[in-house]
Amino acid sequence: MNKLEKRIKEEGRILPGDILKVDSFLNHLIDIELLDWIGKEFHKRFKDSGANKILTIEASGIPPAVMSAHYFKVPLLFAKKAKSNNLGNQNLYISKVKSYTYENDFYVTVVKDYLNKGDKVLIIDDFLATGEASKGMIDVCRQAGAEVVGVGICVEKGFQPGGKYLREEGCRVESLAIISSLDEDSGKVTLAD
Amino acid sequence: MNKLEKRIKEEGRILPGDILKVDSFLNHLIDIELLDWIGKEFHKRFKDSGANKILTIEASGIPPAVMSAHYFKVPLLFAKKAKSNNLGNQNLYISKVKSYTYENDFYVTVVKDYLNKGDKVLIIDDFLATGEASKGMIDVCRQAGAEVVGVGICVEKGFQPGGKYLREEGCRVESLAIISSLDEDSGKVTLAD
Repeated sequence: MNKLEKRIKEEGRILPGDILKVDSFLNHLIDIELLDWIGKEFHKRFKDSGANKILTIEASGIPPAVMSAHYFKVPLLFAKKAKSNNLGNQNLYISKVKSYTYENDFYVTVVKDYLNKGDKVLIIDDFLATGEASKGMIDVCRQAGAEVVGVGICVEKGFQPGGKYLREEGCRVESLAIISSLDEDSGKVTLAD
Repeated sequence: MNKLEKRIKEEGRILPGDILKVDSFLNHLIDIELLDWIGKEFHKRFKDSGANKILTIEASGIPPAVMSAHYFKVPLLFAKKAKSNNLGNQNLYISKVKSYTYENDFYVTVVKDYLNKGDKVLIIDDFLATGEASKGMIDVCRQAGAEVVGVGICVEKGFQPGGKYLREEGCRVESLAIISSLDEDSGKVTLAD
């Protein structure tokens, strides 16, 4: 088990609806030593990707993306979430994202100036479940003519379809921990090999 | 001029309503080398503060707070913003914040388990203007019985009352750049000495 998998086993809590709470070390209170390892690990796995930009989405994707950008020494772009596409702004790339967690759709937005044709983009996020947020980020890259060279995920819910979908689409997806099942009754988190 | 002041002079854009846009290097696309300098600089200025925790608020406070926590080697807690205080959750410290930018009040929330009596908290944020977000973070620390040992700000709008208020309240505030005026017509940003 790697450092992240170990913490998930020790501290992850399961809530109704297949929710895995990791807010004691990853996405509310953040263990900075673990985050440092995450940034180094994404760099190790993707250093040959040619990435010249890291893309994530606010808010909890930002910490792992910052530490990754630190080790890659490349700029970090964080996409913003908007409630409405009626933004009246021609300067944005916008992609609609279905949200299952909150049952509200939202829009991924980035300022056009900051995502360009020729960019080689590494997408980093804390969770991958249905893959909707990743699809939104891939879509804004496509609109910009930028290439997505990889998707780095801290925690993938392997029992949800996002990872399979992205890999079948030809994305290189690297997940630091893949959850194969969550048993709410026993509180047991099972990790994929 | 330090690195941040230089970038503000070169790239900051003034929008109506005394808004200074720094999204080409600080809070949308992030220059990771500049962010590294920011983290080191906060560490240099506050290393004798005894801080054992960094507190910020989502979303654009997170990048400078991550790099600061990296150099302090202490955990990072990022407060969340909620639209309503009707959260039905006894496990949260909650403070109401008046927002001038978006004309919507919001609530700063942190899970009680992660902010404790005895904590020495360094608050880090990207902007200080009216000081409302800082006041909300200071309030949740007070509720927890934690001590605020300092407030580190990337860009302070010196012509707005937040900095003066916090310093008069006895807070140690360190701002990496203080704007003394924004002239929308000429586009000129004037920095304090």
